[in-house]
Amino acid sequence: MDKKLKIYIINGPNLNLLGVREKNIYGSFSFEDYFEKLKISFRSIELIYFQSNHEGELIDKIHEVGFNADGIVLNAGAYTHTSIALADAIKAITCAVVEVHISNVHAREEYRHKSFISKNCVGGIFGMGMEGYKLAIDFLLSQKSADFL
Amino acid sequence: MDKKLKIYIINGPNLNLLGVREKNIYGSFSFEDYFEKLKISFRSIELIYFQSNHEGELIDKIHEVGFNADGIVLNAGAYTHTSIALADAIKAITCAVVEVHISNVHAREEYRHKSFISKNCVGGIFGMGMEGYKLAIDFLLSQKSADFL
Amino acid sequence: MDKKLKIYIINGPNLNLLGVREKNIYGSFSFEDYFEKLKISFRSIELIYFQSNHEGELIDKIHEVGFNADGIVLNAGAYTHTSIALADAIKAITCAVVEVHISNVHAREEYRHKSFISKNCVGGIFGMGMEGYKLAIDFLLSQKSADFL
Amino acid sequence: MDKKLKIYIINGPNLNLLGVREKNIYGSFSFEDYFEKLKISFRSIELIYFQSNHEGELIDKIHEVGFNADGIVLNAGAYTHTSIALADAIKAITCAVVEVHISNVHAREEYRHKSFISKNCVGGIFGMGMEGYKLAIDFLLSQKSADFL
Amino acid sequence: MDKKLKIYIINGPNLNLLGVREKNIYGSFSFEDYFEKLKISFRSIELIYFQSNHEGELIDKIHEVGFNADGIVLNAGAYTHTSIALADAIKAITCAVVEVHISNVHAREEYRHKSFISKNCVGGIFGMGMEGYKLAIDFLLSQKSADFL
Amino acid sequence: MDKKLKIYIINGPNLNLLGVREKNIYGSFSFEDYFEKLKISFRSIELIYFQSNHEGELIDKIHEVGFNADGIVLNAGAYTHTSIALADAIKAITCAVVEVHISNVHAREEYRHKSFISKNCVGGIFGMGMEGYKLAIDFLLSQKSADFL
Amino acid sequence: MDKKLKIYIINGPNLNLLGVREKNIYGSFSFEDYFEKLKISFRSIELIYFQSNHEGELIDKIHEVGFNADGIVLNAGAYTHTSIALADAIKAITCAVVEVHISNVHAREEYRHKSFISKNCVGGIFGMGMEGYKLAIDFLLSQKSADFL
Amino acid sequence: MDKKLKIYIINGPNLNLLGVREKNIYGSFSFEDYFEKLKISFRSIELIYFQSNHEGELIDKIHEVGFNADGIVLNAGAYTHTSIALADAIKAITCAVVEVHISNVHAREEYRHKSFISKNCVGGIFGMGMEGYKLAIDFLLSQKSADFL
Amino acid sequence: MDKKLKIYIINGPNLNLLGVREKNIYGSFSFEDYFEKLKISFRSIELIYFQSNHEGELIDKIHEVGFNADGIVLNAGAYTHTSIALADAIKAITCAVVEVHISNVHAREEYRHKSFISKNCVGGIFGMGMEGYKLAIDFLLSQKSADFL
Amino acid sequence: MDKKLKIYIINGPNLNLLGVREKNIYGSFSFEDYFEKLKISFRSIELIYFQSNHEGELIDKIHEVGFNADGIVLNAGAYTHTSIALADAIKAITCAVVEVHISNVHAREEYRHKSFISKNCVGGIFGMGMEGYKLAIDFLLSQKSADFL
Amino acid sequence: MDKKLKIYIINGPNLNLLGVREKNIYGSFSFEDYFEKLKISFRSIELIYFQSNHEGELIDKIHEVGFNADGIVLNAGAYTHTSIALADAIKAITCAVVEVHISNVHAREEYRHKSFISKNCVGGIFGMGMEGYKLAIDFLLSQKSADFL
Amino acid sequence: MDKKLKIYIINGPNLNLLGVREKNIYGSFSFEDYFEKLKISFRSIELIYFQSNHEGELIDKIHEVGFNADGIVLNAGAYTHTSIALADAIKAITCAVVEVHISNVHAREEYRHKSFISKNCVGGIFGMGMEGYKLAIDFLLSQKSADFL
Repeated sequence: MDKKLKIYIINGPNLNLLGVREKNIYGSFSFEDYFEKLKISFRSIELIYFQSNHEGELIDKIHEVGFNADGIVLNAGAYTHTSIALADAIKAITCAVVEVHISNVHAREEYRHKSFISKNCVGGIFGMGMEGYKLAIDFLLSQKSADFL
Repeated sequence: MDKKLKIYIINGPNLNLLGVREKNIYGSFSFEDYFEKLKISFRSIELIYFQSNHEGELIDKIHEVGFNADGIVLNAGAYTHTSIALADAIKAITCAVVEVHISNVHAREEYRHKSFISKNCVGGIFGMGMEGYKLAIDFLLSQKSADFL
Repeated sequence: MDKKLKIYIINGPNLNLLGVREKNIYGSFSFEDYFEKLKISFRSIELIYFQSNHEGELIDKIHEVGFNADGIVLNAGAYTHTSIALADAIKAITCAVVEVHISNVHAREEYRHKSFISKNCVGGIFGMGMEGYKLAIDFLLSQKSADFL
Repeated sequence: MDKKLKIYIINGPNLNLLGVREKNIYGSFSFEDYFEKLKISFRSIELIYFQSNHEGELIDKIHEVGFNADGIVLNAGAYTHTSIALADAIKAITCAVVEVHISNVHAREEYRHKSFISKNCVGGIFGMGMEGYKLAIDFLLSQKSADFL
Repeated sequence: MDKKLKIYIINGPNLNLLGVREKNIYGSFSFEDYFEKLKISFRSIELIYFQSNHEGELIDKIHEVGFNADGIVLNAGAYTHTSIALADAIKAITCAVVEVHISNVHAREEYRHKSFISKNCVGGIFGMGMEGYKLAIDFLLSQKSADFL
Repeated sequence: MDKKLKIYIINGPNLNLLGVREKNIYGSFSFEDYFEKLKISFRSIELIYFQSNHEGELIDKIHEVGFNADGIVLNAGAYTHTSIALADAIKAITCAVVEVHISNVHAREEYRHKSFISKNCVGGIFGMGMEGYKLAIDFLLSQKSADFL
Repeated sequence: MDKKLKIYIINGPNLNLLGVREKNIYGSFSFEDYFEKLKISFRSIELIYFQSNHEGELIDKIHEVGFNADGIVLNAGAYTHTSIALADAIKAITCAVVEVHISNVHAREEYRHKSFISKNCVGGIFGMGMEGYKLAIDFLLSQKSADFL
Repeated sequence: MDKKLKIYIINGPNLNLLGVREKNIYGSFSFEDYFEKLKISFRSIELIYFQSNHEGELIDKIHEVGFNADGIVLNAGAYTHTSIALADAIKAITCAVVEVHISNVHAREEYRHKSFISKNCVGGIFGMGMEGYKLAIDFLLSQKSADFL
Repeated sequence: MDKKLKIYIINGPNLNLLGVREKNIYGSFSFEDYFEKLKISFRSIELIYFQSNHEGELIDKIHEVGFNADGIVLNAGAYTHTSIALADAIKAITCAVVEVHISNVHAREEYRHKSFISKNCVGGIFGMGMEGYKLAIDFLLSQKSADFL
Repeated sequence: MDKKLKIYIINGPNLNLLGVREKNIYGSFSFEDYFEKLKISFRSIELIYFQSNHEGELIDKIHEVGFNADGIVLNAGAYTHTSIALADAIKAITCAVVEVHISNVHAREEYRHKSFISKNCVGGIFGMGMEGYKLAIDFLLSQKSADFL
Repeated sequence: MDKKLKIYIINGPNLNLLGVREKNIYGSFSFEDYFEKLKISFRSIELIYFQSNHEGELIDKIHEVGFNADGIVLNAGAYTHTSIALADAIKAITCAVVEVHISNVHAREEYRHKSFISKNCVGGIFGMGMEGYKLAIDFLLSQKSADFL
Repeated sequence: MDKKLKIYIINGPNLNLLGVREKNIYGSFSFEDYFEKLKISFRSIELIYFQSNHEGELIDKIHEVGFNADGIVLNAGAYTHTSIALADAIKAITCAVVEVHISNVHAREEYRHKSFISKNCVGGIFGMGMEGYKLAIDFLLSQKSADFL
């Protein structure tokens, strides 16, 4: 198999401020820093990162990559709790989506306990900090290797 | 009457995937195909089509055309159920808006039964597939001819 | 095909008062007047009209015609919001039912936003006045012609 | 003034069992007995009594008399709490309707605290036993005499 | 029977402004004016009037007169919807209390549909304007005469 | 004991379509067929069958037979979930009523989980198909024989 | 068919106190007494009785017998209203489970109206006292004989 | 202090239509007109105006200026009631945000009473028309001068 | 214009403890201290201060001054969230009322997010500490000067 | 320690009727009688009793004594369930408050299960009749003696 | 009276960790330590202690001792909020049960405010730490001595 | 570091049936099979497995190991949604707990969307099948290695 697997990490609103915003909840270094480390850990696959604060751009991106990627790791931020449009986009595409939340959303405000997108994702991870992204990729890879058997 | 009536069809999030997404619910050919047929059916009027996955772009478009068009046929997709901003935009403009849903939203998830925009539209059609757009235009035309009496 | 298509219009409670009751909402001429016009518009099909204020009579009528008619246009009036029995009757029969409301029910009291019957109908139209009945028939005919293809 | 005022008393479901049913709540003699007394108390007006267990018959009767009567005293029984159709009928007619409940509905099950019809009636009386009907007629007469001033 | 029956009319908050406040709902003359008329209508009984905007004063008054009066006509105004303390006071005393509302509370805001006190009153009257007080007294007298039989 | 026990089976809306309607839920032969078998099983008692789609007719029938029958087996269909009037009728009569549902209502829509009538029946059976009627009669007979001890 | 059918009766919390606890609701003799009678009535089948106040033991027992028994009659007592674990256990096994409640749970506290387990049972019986167990066994046997046809 | 204080006014969806849309609620001249007056009133500070109908653009702008501005006056329009993402953006930045609504949102639809963003703002002003913006700036300045003490 | 404008500041329950109670929320000096400063800031108008812990006294005061004052600044404290009577009083009077809360009520308990009085006030200010009172007066004065134009 | 500890017992609405009102719930002798016994039991401390039916007076009293007393035993009666103002008063003061209810409020109406004040009290006692007051004082004394250690 | 009174203290889940778990809420020494002190304080009665994390064992124990003990002091821990089975067990037995919570449950999570067991206990104490057990025993003894009078 | 890290996997109710129960949701081989594979993957640590259908036993086990283990992976099954006692146990111990669900609970019944335990766990994983356990251990190990830095 020559072609590298292609996995997208898509981050939603305010996640561009990681390392700046609410450090007690989200830690103190930026996602870009972390992403460099992730790429090193997963040299054999192609990792692409996208972030937007726009619900519409997130949907556009999911449409764009969702029929060809080998998996999407999605942290939809606050749109998790309010966006049926995003949930519909996930349902519409063909590749697997894994939901990730850096913080333990269930230990925060009531309205963060409800997720419109969870049911359309394969599965999800919450509260494991940046490590959550790595584990999500591990999961997608484990599924892919299962496909090849 | 020299000037053609001008009617806009505005489609919201994920409707660009018609013919691709969830075919069991939405059928298997694209809106663009259908739009060509619609234009043939309504040669005497000017039909313009716009689609966006961005709530803000939908509002911008409604502002842009809503004071001059002879009617808008709006399928706001999932924003139907979450967007007060879109509902406010419809209320703010002067031309009539007809709400259309391709599927029978009332036979689907509970959260699709609630519409923020219905009350600001003249009326609506659901569950009639692509035919719903045609009937919505028929309705707008019937109102226009009533205006001329 | 010699036999005319047979389509029923069934109106529920208080719709016998059209033209008398709450004219600001429902307009000022009777359904019977309108029905005469409808028959002229649809000469090639057999249109039959039935109205009752009795939930039970509406169910009886739906049972009676629902296995043989080519379609039912149903404005169940207030029973829309309270009658599970009527919804069950619609589900039990074999012909398509289209729900119609003259007024924009979503712009009125909260309890008119909920419909027990919508999910068992093919689709529905609201807020388009008497024109709604015409469009509903158009829809049923469009489906029939699709069947013949 | 030659013509007698005409006031209808309309009783809903199960009220035909007065004097038989749940005597601890409703007392032990029939409405017919009481009605005879009422007619004696109000000799100068025409009092007409109607009872039905059918929601549809109650609506029919309200339609029939509601544009000509000088007032209706309505005890809709359990339909009070479930019938939007009946509420619509009351709103559709032109004569005043007074709601009466024999028992104190607010001291009974939670679901008897909600009335769909109250808002469309002029006013109402509850918990005053049979006397409630008499007071309702007194009220209608007081309004009529006010009209003549 | 030498001693006159003693009936209290107790009005709650803002009812001192009758004739001044929201005339479209409550009419345009004061309760004191009306009370003079009432006293003339019921010469054979002793009618006493009390009004306060203080929940505590209303409770004090109910305690003071509620073991000796022959009946209380209570319009608790907005405390109707919020005061459990007042409801408890009514339950604690021995004389009958009749609830009166001048306007049709059920045709107004949702929060006016709930009454804490209704269940502890004998019965109630709403929407009959000032006439409601007269009918309430009529009811109390009818009960008293029944007692003497 | 010369006189046969008299037990009524009363079926509500849409149950006349048994064997026709939704066969996957209700099975494929009519109630009349089943009733013939039931009569053979219970030769020593008088079994009478009544069905109506009218809430009012069901109430009328319950009033008519409910003071003399030795028991009623009632499948109120969808009125189970909406009719307080029917519940009141059951409470008003003197003979025992057993509630029966052919399907397992608790495995269906949320709104079929609530029953207004259960609390006024002696007991109930759900999900046992046609067999439920037979067991209900067995229960009524077991109670009768207990009465004779 | 040499082997006897094997049917389990499983009772949940507090049912060991039958005959002791709340006699006005549950009658005054113990389940063990009743069980002896049941065994006499059903000599041709093997009846086994199990009771526990422990949610976990009830689940263990259901697991243990649920793949081999010919039926389970389950009165889960208060766990009916709170135990999703028990409901899952019923769904996991292969034999039919019939839900029984001695009292009419729908005539008691609101929280007894909701059952987590009903939807996973074949059907249920409530309010028929001890007789309910007998009828449940009758039902299971009727199903078994149907299987043999 | 040579550097001028820098305060941003950020308006959300549909506020570009001020002076055009629903004049009975929002008055009849545009925000740009008003902004010119505001700049004259506050010559000593730098006032910058931004408006967008896009939730994402509002978040982007708040991120862009929120770490350097001396204050933000935010009228988020309908996003006030639906956008957790916007609320998170406000929490993430370091400068104070004051919430402004031109109309009295509490006198309008129920869904306008709930604000996701209020708790993350320093404070808010509603119902004071255009004047609300001026007072919000006054407040921010009063805080700044307090800081200097 | 010789007569000074007369503006009332009315504070509700527990606000007499300002400077004593919960200093982290309300700051540490008394309202009386602040009021002295306010009077100096607004020398040209007559400012009158009233505080009470009694709902009834607040209503009495609003009645007393509400038909003659040039404006009321009202901080109803906890009665904001529970008193319909106070809301009715505000509606009944003729002068404008501005609602003020010292703390950001929306960042505190859920039950402080609901205000019965807001809809009857012209507008409101929350979370701006003592400064809120000053801004409320500024607003009332701006409206007055607008009246004179 | 020369100075006696000073503990206040504050009773709310309707508790002045103890021994008169609803004896089946509250027993048949007055609080004054009981208070005399209490004083004898606690000779070494100063016990002061206050009762009012006025929410405002209860708040005033709590303010007056709450910064100097060694403890308050508070039975707020029905204000327990409706008064946020009272809860705020308790939070504002410095001495410990113990909540007491004579009856078992949790065995009564649903609305008596909710207490606004509990969370601001140290703890509470319910359902122990008059004995509850004694135990509350015992608790306050046990805390005081702990303070001295 | 030779026989000592026998009172049980029954503690539910996680209370075995007292002194270990969440010391800021529950204090830092174990229940066993405290129990030794309690036994010394109440030498004249027999005190027995039981703890379990198993709902079923708590029910078993209540059954075992509840017909012979002179009282039970029950801290059901988290089962307080979820166990109807435990509530039923308390109702089924004959001796008095007093509910105790060490912490002020009303100042904690919303779901700790609801208790299934309160209504079946004689009364309860919350928020008084270990002292609550002592006061509960005092109460039980006071009732016993009342019995002997 | 000589001592192996010790990590517990604790499975709740019905998970002993993995491979037997609802294979479409949970797959078709037992947890024991999977556990053997896990041990091979994590040779350097000590993995211990415990399963119980008893809420109490799960709490006991968590207490037993929760102060010494290096981490717990907990799949509490249905107790996730109903057990506050289990949530309290997790909060009481000192080692980290990771919540795992094999299926995507958010794509199943509404009542499986709510978790009492999530907020007391470090984080969680759902919908990743057996792989979820492996990833949870990976996470715990990543945290441990972070501790050593």
